[in-house]
Amino acid sequence: MRAKSQSHKVTKSQVTRKKVAKRKVTSQKLQGRRTGGREKRKLPQLKFDKKGLIPAVIQDYNTGEVLMVAYMNKDSLKITLKEKRTCFYSRSRKVLWRKGETSGNIQKVKSIWYDCDKDTLLIKVEQIGSACHTGNRSCFYRKI
Amino acid sequence: MRAKSQSHKVTKSQVTRKKVAKRKVTSQKLQGRRTGGREKRKLPQLKFDKKGLIPAVIQDYNTGEVLMVAYMNKDSLKITLKEKRTCFYSRSRKVLWRKGETSGNIQKVKSIWYDCDKDTLLIKVEQIGSACHTGNRSCFYRKI
Repeated sequence: MRAKSQSHKVTKSQVTRKKVAKRKVTSQKLQGRRTGGREKRKLPQLKFDKKGLIPAVIQDYNTGEVLMVAYMNKDSLKITLKEKRTCFYSRSRKVLWRKGETSGNIQKVKSIWYDCDKDTLLIKVEQIGSACHTGNRSCFYRKI
Repeated sequence: MRAKSQSHKVTKSQVTRKKVAKRKVTSQKLQGRRTGGREKRKLPQLKFDKKGLIPAVIQDYNTGEVLMVAYMNKDSLKITLKEKRTCFYSRSRKVLWRKGETSGNIQKVKSIWYDCDKDTLLIKVEQIGSACHTGNRSCFYRKI
């Protein structure tokens, strides 16, 4: 019984220690963003082309099927990272477009990879419905 | 026994029919190239960009792993189709390069697909050795 009552007893010094620990974690997170202390937080210096774009290969994380290739600018990549759903830049309409915003065929981001040249992305997704506007699951449905 | 001997007996009229059939197949093949009679033979009207290039996603035909993305012009695509080994156009060196010509890490082409917009290729290959110059099997070995 003594042990149980002790577990609920929080002294002033314990509160102080908890506050200090919390500050340390926050500091580490920020440092991670700035200096790469936490690999997962660090964004690589990606190479966007002259138009500010980078191609992204979209792959089904489960089956490995390549679904489509689209382009991102910095803003669409930020949105993709934040919302964990793909957002691209339309080169023809010159606007950002959240994949599936009208069709509902969204892509939930599972992981984002970049290549050795840092000029191409590979995004593994959970595809809801079809990736292609034709109704095909993948845009690559025709063979030469 | 009669049936067996008949199967080896080839009459003049049979030879003629075979020749006619052979001519028909050849004609269909050629027609296929010109008019699309055989889908596999017809080359689609691909959209090359202003620099005459089209991106090609290279995927391991066996595992589904995305190995790299490189660019092709018409000449490198023709070579790829003819030699059944990938050949790309180097945007930095501005020359054609047969993948693996120095390293030996060639990519044997299994199938070539094109997307709904006809502006991207997906090539499924048998990768000999590593695809990436860093020694990694895939160029996409780093995660954001």
